[in-house]
Amino acid sequence: MNLPSPSLVIDRSALDHNIATISETLPGRHLRPHVKAFKSTALAQRLADAGHRTFTCATVREAEGMAAAGLGEDLLIANEIVDRDQLRRVAAIEPAVTLAVDSEETIDLAVLAGVRRLLIDVNVGLPRCGCVPGDAGRLADRARAAGIDVRGVMGYEGHLMMVHDRASRIRKVERSMALLLEAAEAVGGEIVSAGGTGTFDTNTWANEIQAGTFLLGDTQYDALDLPFRLALTLECSVLSINPEGWLVVNAGLKSLGMDHGNPTWLEGEVMFCSDEHTTLRCNEPSTWSVGDRTRLYPAHLDPTVAKHERMWLVDGEEIIDQFAIDLRHW
Amino acid sequence: MNLPSPSLVIDRSALDHNIATISETLPGRHLRPHVKAFKSTALAQRLADAGHRTFTCATVREAEGMAAAGLGEDLLIANEIVDRDQLRRVAAIEPAVTLAVDSEETIDLAVLAGVRRLLIDVNVGLPRCGCVPGDAGRLADRARAAGIDVRGVMGYEGHLMMVHDRASRIRKVERSMALLLEAAEAVGGEIVSAGGTGTFDTNTWANEIQAGTFLLGDTQYDALDLPFRLALTLECSVLSINPEGWLVVNAGLKSLGMDHGNPTWLEGEVMFCSDEHTTLRCNEPSTWSVGDRTRLYPAHLDPTVAKHERMWLVDGEEIIDQFAIDLRHW
Repeated sequence: MNLPSPSLVIDRSALDHNIATISETLPGRHLRPHVKAFKSTALAQRLADAGHRTFTCATVREAEGMAAAGLGEDLLIANEIVDRDQLRRVAAIEPAVTLAVDSEETIDLAVLAGVRRLLIDVNVGLPRCGCVPGDAGRLADRARAAGIDVRGVMGYEGHLMMVHDRASRIRKVERSMALLLEAAEAVGGEIVSAGGTGTFDTNTWANEIQAGTFLLGDTQYDALDLPFRLALTLECSVLSINPEGWLVVNAGLKSLGMDHGNPTWLEGEVMFCSDEHTTLRCNEPSTWSVGDRTRLYPAHLDPTVAKHERMWLVDGEEIIDQFAIDLRHW
Repeated sequence: MNLPSPSLVIDRSALDHNIATISETLPGRHLRPHVKAFKSTALAQRLADAGHRTFTCATVREAEGMAAAGLGEDLLIANEIVDRDQLRRVAAIEPAVTLAVDSEETIDLAVLAGVRRLLIDVNVGLPRCGCVPGDAGRLADRARAAGIDVRGVMGYEGHLMMVHDRASRIRKVERSMALLLEAAEAVGGEIVSAGGTGTFDTNTWANEIQAGTFLLGDTQYDALDLPFRLALTLECSVLSINPEGWLVVNAGLKSLGMDHGNPTWLEGEVMFCSDEHTTLRCNEPSTWSVGDRTRLYPAHLDPTVAKHERMWLVDGEEIIDQFAIDLRHW
């Protein structure tokens, strides 16, 4: 096997396991996979092949790319958009994309740009976007009065993804989703969209789950009690071996999302990441050679993938396929 | 002014100030600008126009792009490379690129691939690449015996960039550079390359300085006593306003280098960054409107720039130019 380095590498059996596992709990439309985590239409196609043909997007670029790849039959952009040019691009996508709104202003801008389908985004406890639950019905009425198809509600309980105790997670998700269900009753429509990888099987109140990280994984989610495997690593080459006890590899923070901290190295300790290098502490540097390959496990999947042009699918030593990361940028 | 958002924005007067300031201390070849910080041939051309025509690169892609843009007359790749395909790409660049080596293995791989110019990389205290100073002469002999042009030495005192007290910084840089000068004496050749933005005027022992961050700046370097201005901000749009006292903007950790922490917002406090959003605490949310623009100052320049496709040069409200970030990836 001779991949360029640094390269993102996907383990085929772990990928297959992750798709099969989530499909069992969330068949078909009960999963609305979030493409922001993996930003690749080739990977989205594998989910479509497993019966999941409705997708969540974070950016206009993601929605445009999914539609161009023939995966646009029911796309939700689960973020507010206020730039006029971006809204016009959303309105131009066929079939019509569903867009999140949380205020009079975001509704009026969407209407002005010709967007036809909206979802009311409700704040369910994470200090980010979303209207207060009691305002959702009024916003839906405003949109419907302008001729918009209001398909329901969404609310992301992102503040609960990392609750490690499962029983506590269930209780907190229930309280959070009570806010969303209150809004859903006022809004109507068929969609109650929420959740993520951390709550994929504990959020039983939403009728579709917006999970994405489950597909490839990262070390932060791996610390939870989830049934998914770590499928993604960053392969790199040993550039330099210092007899004082460290190796230097040719992958650093420009190829890794760093907001959840350092990557994990199974054969020793990560000392620090520089732009283009990672320095690894090991007990026996003499067992390594310059040019050896080794792999790092990223701490945060989404920003790691967003830094690369492609990922490689491998089965042991065999390279099976390469996937373009074709949904990057805005 | 109507830029897309999020967008990287360069303030023209700060950019001009930064180039003029460094050229005064380090005219012509005394500065070997490091393109890894800004990854744009258009910005490199501005430095060439100011008399700096020798450049430092971190990746093969940077060197290839610089050569293709007519800026390749004296390129140094200041990192070791061990992948055969990458080494062949280095050897194919005309005129010949100079490559860093720090071991018998990196020399032998470079020779095998047809690389013609090398620099001996010396460890001057940062736990990363570089040979021990006493080994530099032997490595140079080995390379010269294989017909290589060994142009001298380099050593990056990266562990001293953030020494805030100037007098202490000077003393530490002197001790670090004593190691490099010891190696330089054994190696010969005309180049003694070192330094960065943090030591651009305190490293008076090297004969060329590999600075890059000075050009656009970041909040980490801005905490030092340097004469440069912050030229780069990330412009974003207000998506959502919560009466409890926060704003949400449409730029998050996928558009910011996060390894030095959160960006800085001059009008309040950054609560946290998500993938596509930043939540900002402000005292008077009612003074903001959905759709308003605001700007964040990145904490770390290099990985921030590497996440974007382009930067915009502005003068007040006027958009002057756009620069492709054309030196990304590996």
